[in-house]
Amino acid sequence: MPDKVIPAGYAMRRIRLSISYDGTDFCGWQLQASGRTVQGDLEDALLRLTGQQVRVVGSGRTDSGVHALGQVAHIDLCGCTIPGERFARALNGMLKDDVRIQASEDTSCRFHARHSAVAREYRYHICDYSALTSLNTRFVYPVSRLPDLHALQGYLRSIVGRHDFTTFSAAGDQSTNKVRDIISASAYMAGRELVVRIVGNAFLWRMVRSIVGTMLDLESMGAPAEEMGRRLGGVDRSLAGATAPPRGLVLQHITYGSHEE
Amino acid sequence: MPDKVIPAGYAMRRIRLSISYDGTDFCGWQLQASGRTVQGDLEDALLRLTGQQVRVVGSGRTDSGVHALGQVAHIDLCGCTIPGERFARALNGMLKDDVRIQASEDTSCRFHARHSAVAREYRYHICDYSALTSLNTRFVYPVSRLPDLHALQGYLRSIVGRHDFTTFSAAGDQSTNKVRDIISASAYMAGRELVVRIVGNAFLWRMVRSIVGTMLDLESMGAPAEEMGRRLGGVDRSLAGATAPPRGLVLQHITYGSHEE
Repeated sequence: MPDKVIPAGYAMRRIRLSISYDGTDFCGWQLQASGRTVQGDLEDALLRLTGQQVRVVGSGRTDSGVHALGQVAHIDLCGCTIPGERFARALNGMLKDDVRIQASEDTSCRFHARHSAVAREYRYHICDYSALTSLNTRFVYPVSRLPDLHALQGYLRSIVGRHDFTTFSAAGDQSTNKVRDIISASAYMAGRELVVRIVGNAFLWRMVRSIVGTMLDLESMGAPAEEMGRRLGGVDRSLAGATAPPRGLVLQHITYGSHEE
Repeated sequence: MPDKVIPAGYAMRRIRLSISYDGTDFCGWQLQASGRTVQGDLEDALLRLTGQQVRVVGSGRTDSGVHALGQVAHIDLCGCTIPGERFARALNGMLKDDVRIQASEDTSCRFHARHSAVAREYRYHICDYSALTSLNTRFVYPVSRLPDLHALQGYLRSIVGRHDFTTFSAAGDQSTNKVRDIISASAYMAGRELVVRIVGNAFLWRMVRSIVGTMLDLESMGAPAEEMGRRLGGVDRSLAGATAPPRGLVLQHITYGSHEE
């Protein structure tokens, strides 16, 4: 009779959280010695809510200034009777408006926010200065001339598939294996914003921003579509262009394999 | 030879400004004894740019927390040689990101931002809590249940045309004449947001928010479309429902009569 051994409310539970945040005023996702972070705000709120020091495990880090609509995290709790689906509202009452729990639920201890993730989707938003307003300024990268959509679509075809993405890795990247699978990559207009959408199994540090920045450089030089593949195939960081700024980037969605949840 | 009487750069000039702002951190448009206002920020920036105390005349006030994509204002300058179209960039360099000059141009002294306006367009954004994120939270009014779109469309039909809008006026409204012309009023879905769009020749203080709040009350009671017209026809403030909060409201566009510009 496990109900007698572990009284209800004292069993270990794992909760899954879906999280959105406006990254503008954060020093990124991950807890740091100083500076406001999303993980830090969440752990502070959980301490106030449950009285416990709870570790929040996210699907992955996001950099300072990067936003999320579909970040996912899990937490493990002991001795807390709040139903899983109530955590969202309870935590939102303790969080500032720039972090919001979109949903919460009890989940299996076999679910892991980072290890169970099979795909990550990022979107990068670009507009020209005439379309920049005080209402979108936090979430879009303004450029003096909107790049040609078809040129970007051509560059993006080169990155789909399994590749060594060393070219688009950042100086401080610690990954020993830089091979990643890009599942899909596209560009489209949404109103007056140009959106670059990239879905991959995983990403190197600043990889999306390096891909976007390099494409903008290539487009401004009028480089042909094959040039993007040539840079990628060179497997050399010095072949990358600029790194696009964080404000245009949104972690849109994390996909989990149903067998792993 | 007026060029000799008034040296170039010393003639009086009128500049037209198109302005967007995120109203969240402002105590409204109009200059106040204390508290940050959009007009105040603009006049401070103009003082630094031109060395002159310049009065900014807007198309109308917006309340604390109300946003604008299409606010219009004019300024009169003397002894300033900056070309009209350059003011936008020059002022943006001195403004925080939550106010932005979208465009600037020299205009005729017959143009007046308030008096020459023939129509104002407001949009009010509503979503249910599941669609509220950290990215839209400043610009949308979250409700527990999204109202029925067809019901709102029915209520809105009653307000189109010339009416005495006393019912939807605020307690402190100073207007002696409360008759206004509503040119069009509609409701539609934009993604997961419900948008109420109202265009009128002019509006009473808080009129749009009172109309939206009353419609939400009527819809939740299941009141028939005619009830909105009955409330309007009663010409009595006590017939209005709640006033919807400012965060969902955007001053979208001002229309000017070409003969007056």
